[in-house]
Amino acid sequence: MDDFYMRRALNQARLAYGDGEVPVGAVVIFKDAVIAEAHNEVEKRKDAAAHAEILCLQKAAQKLGNWRLQEAILYCTLEPCTMCAGAFFLYRLKRVVWGAPDLRHGAHGSWINVRQERHPIHEVEVESGVLQEECSELMRAFFQERRKEALTVSS
Amino acid sequence: MDDFYMRRALNQARLAYGDGEVPVGAVVIFKDAVIAEAHNEVEKRKDAAAHAEILCLQKAAQKLGNWRLQEAILYCTLEPCTMCAGAFFLYRLKRVVWGAPDLRHGAHGSWINVRQERHPIHEVEVESGVLQEECSELMRAFFQERRKEALTVSS
Repeated sequence: MDDFYMRRALNQARLAYGDGEVPVGAVVIFKDAVIAEAHNEVEKRKDAAAHAEILCLQKAAQKLGNWRLQEAILYCTLEPCTMCAGAFFLYRLKRVVWGAPDLRHGAHGSWINVRQERHPIHEVEVESGVLQEECSELMRAFFQERRKEALTVSS
Repeated sequence: MDDFYMRRALNQARLAYGDGEVPVGAVVIFKDAVIAEAHNEVEKRKDAAAHAEILCLQKAAQKLGNWRLQEAILYCTLEPCTMCAGAFFLYRLKRVVWGAPDLRHGAHGSWINVRQERHPIHEVEVESGVLQEECSELMRAFFQERRKEALTVSS
């Protein structure tokens, strides 16, 4: 099932790509059903906090009428940044599954690891590397295209 | 000026207190003017991400029409949690000034320190302990009251 839900998250990431946003997508699963889907909207909303994970968790909390998502699982295509990894504790997420490592900003081990110390209130299960190649490839393609555009503009 | 702006943040924290929210407040300063004020609204919005700092940064970004807040300073009454401390990098904040340490969740040294490793993109200046006593006292009073209420309900 991890592959299945990660494909849903990848579909969201592709929507972000189409909008010129860094292609990250997320879905939240509750009782074996998708209750929220979202993708990165930083540029569209002009909001640095509009990461796929945060938007998706907010939608899930609205849907359940509760900011505690204890039985919920989040699938996201990229290793979370510090902000998002911090949010997972706050929403009391049961489990997080992510695809590609983020070597520059990842806060589940790539840059820092916010799970190194035991959190005082909540522990989150983490699974990483699900459909890693597909998730990474989407990021690579996006940034390659952006670099080409930058070269075209500057030449 | 740090005291002056922290008092504004404390006023916001008191509004949260009045609403039954954990009393944390924040203001954002840009070119010597307050451009955003906010307080914790987790319960009201049923959203674990509705911390004073995030709401305030979102308001500031909307006001400036830009998610990059490079010249902005955030004042907040409490040491940031991991999510908020992560957001400071994303919004490219110039400086953060906070009041009371959060011994349980603080991500600027009390629980973990997300600034221990140099961030790949952005460094944020941090000043701590401004009006610490007043900021801490508000938190103490809030949780003391909550414990009393819990005892009354259970007795």
